[in-house]
Amino acid sequence: MSTFGTVTVVGVGLIGGSVGLALRSRSLARRVVGVGRSESSLAEARRLGVIDDYSTDLAGGLQGAEVAVVCTPVDRVADFARRAAAVGPAGLLVTDAASTKRTIVEDVERDDRGRAAFVGAHPIAGWERQGAAHADGRLFDGRVCVLTPTERTPDDRLRRARVFWSSIGCRLVETSPEGHDRALAMTSHLPHAVSAALARTVPAESLPLAAGAYRDGTRVAGADAALWTAIFLENRRPLLDALDAFAAEVASFREALERSDADALRSWWDDGRARRAGFDPEPRPAAPQSRIETAPPRVPQ
Amino acid sequence: MSTFGTVTVVGVGLIGGSVGLALRSRSLARRVVGVGRSESSLAEARRLGVIDDYSTDLAGGLQGAEVAVVCTPVDRVADFARRAAAVGPAGLLVTDAASTKRTIVEDVERDDRGRAAFVGAHPIAGWERQGAAHADGRLFDGRVCVLTPTERTPDDRLRRARVFWSSIGCRLVETSPEGHDRALAMTSHLPHAVSAALARTVPAESLPLAAGAYRDGTRVAGADAALWTAIFLENRRPLLDALDAFAAEVASFREALERSDADALRSWWDDGRARRAGFDPEPRPAAPQSRIETAPPRVPQ
Repeated sequence: MSTFGTVTVVGVGLIGGSVGLALRSRSLARRVVGVGRSESSLAEARRLGVIDDYSTDLAGGLQGAEVAVVCTPVDRVADFARRAAAVGPAGLLVTDAASTKRTIVEDVERDDRGRAAFVGAHPIAGWERQGAAHADGRLFDGRVCVLTPTERTPDDRLRRARVFWSSIGCRLVETSPEGHDRALAMTSHLPHAVSAALARTVPAESLPLAAGAYRDGTRVAGADAALWTAIFLENRRPLLDALDAFAAEVASFREALERSDADALRSWWDDGRARRAGFDPEPRPAAPQSRIETAPPRVPQ
Repeated sequence: MSTFGTVTVVGVGLIGGSVGLALRSRSLARRVVGVGRSESSLAEARRLGVIDDYSTDLAGGLQGAEVAVVCTPVDRVADFARRAAAVGPAGLLVTDAASTKRTIVEDVERDDRGRAAFVGAHPIAGWERQGAAHADGRLFDGRVCVLTPTERTPDDRLRRARVFWSSIGCRLVETSPEGHDRALAMTSHLPHAVSAALARTVPAESLPLAAGAYRDGTRVAGADAALWTAIFLENRRPLLDALDAFAAEVASFREALERSDADALRSWWDDGRARRAGFDPEPRPAAPQSRIETAPPRVPQ
């Protein structure tokens, strides 16, 4: 007995493929359908066991669907979410997995059918590789998924979105789209920009003398340029604020170093170290499913 | 038949302890003696099998020694190296493991006995933990050790330093002290400062929404404040230059984002990604020992 009937994944890359695998490996859906532009990529995803079936046509792929999960690059999410709500069956839940939320939610909610079907979501999982070939059915285990309902989000869709994202292993957190974007500008988009800035700064001829600090500090600079350019532009204002705060921290370190102020350097370092100690790097088990009718915790706005 | 007689490790923390373990686990030294201030820490290191014996007195700990390895925090290395050369047996090789080289080498070489005994070294290995309890006899396996001989370094000491650091697993690279410091400002000291600046920037209340990019980007912010303050101050000028280059990269990203210039963001990102792709994160096996009489590669100055 599956939890869901047909689930349609729009965009079968790393995230969409992992959603498909997570559903299939737990027998959570009767059928997982992939929708995308490239028939050969979709056929390959089916061969890999990531989806049961596929369509290059959105309406066709949504026939009989109960849930549509839009996992395209961020700049195409709102358009697909609106179209899915327009051509999908009555009762369809439309959700997404994009790393930014405000512009997407605003865009979808301007549309009546979109607003009636959509719950914005962001499972905070992923890595620098791409494509369904790297899909992992355990990718979401214990990871936070941020849901960003607004006062216009229908209650039944919100409840179903909670069930959906919990069922594939996520721990739920709820916040406003704006609160999500401000937090993620700090926790994800800024670290990506900093990683690439560091990669650009260190001269190629010094790399034989690089080790762990360089390796970890530049790891996410290996991510895809087009995907990340779209994320940066979608979350432009919060990211500009985060960059300014970061530049001020670098400048205060530089000033203390310029004047060889050991006490200032030490206390600057200790404060960062203490802040970092508040981060828990381990994924945690999701709450038992019987409890998901209770609203998940909200993070500060 | 050991390669070395008595090897004295001055400062038995993570690095000194790992030198001791690497020597003992390969039976490379007849005897490893630890020298430090705290008798209880030294007794604990002996209990852990990191050293054979110990002394809180430098002269006593150097009796009959063939090699002295100074593994104290950077700001005490030069002093211990000079004193070891002064009170140790004739023929003693004095080497070190400090993350900075110019000020140490200059300081030691101002002293006649220091200059006659010393070869500056920096095995590029370590992590954010400290203490002999975390010592690891494989810490140096395949890692680069930079030797920084000058025109005043005696040839026989240089040859013996090559044998010493190779024997515990390092791949050797040779460069000037200044070349080392410029390169390490970029590959290690800048990434540490950036990591701590990032840790200081991300608000505590956003940490529940942080994941891999934050985790890796801030990992080395967990390192020790006193150790790193000393390193930053010892390598002040090269690090200031590195910080300026980094700040310019962040500023160029910010400008492109401010004007929503997708092409500029994409090409900025792609250049960083390409640079990062030139880094090889895997430790490589050291050259066979029969080859170490040949001078190791020099990195560009």
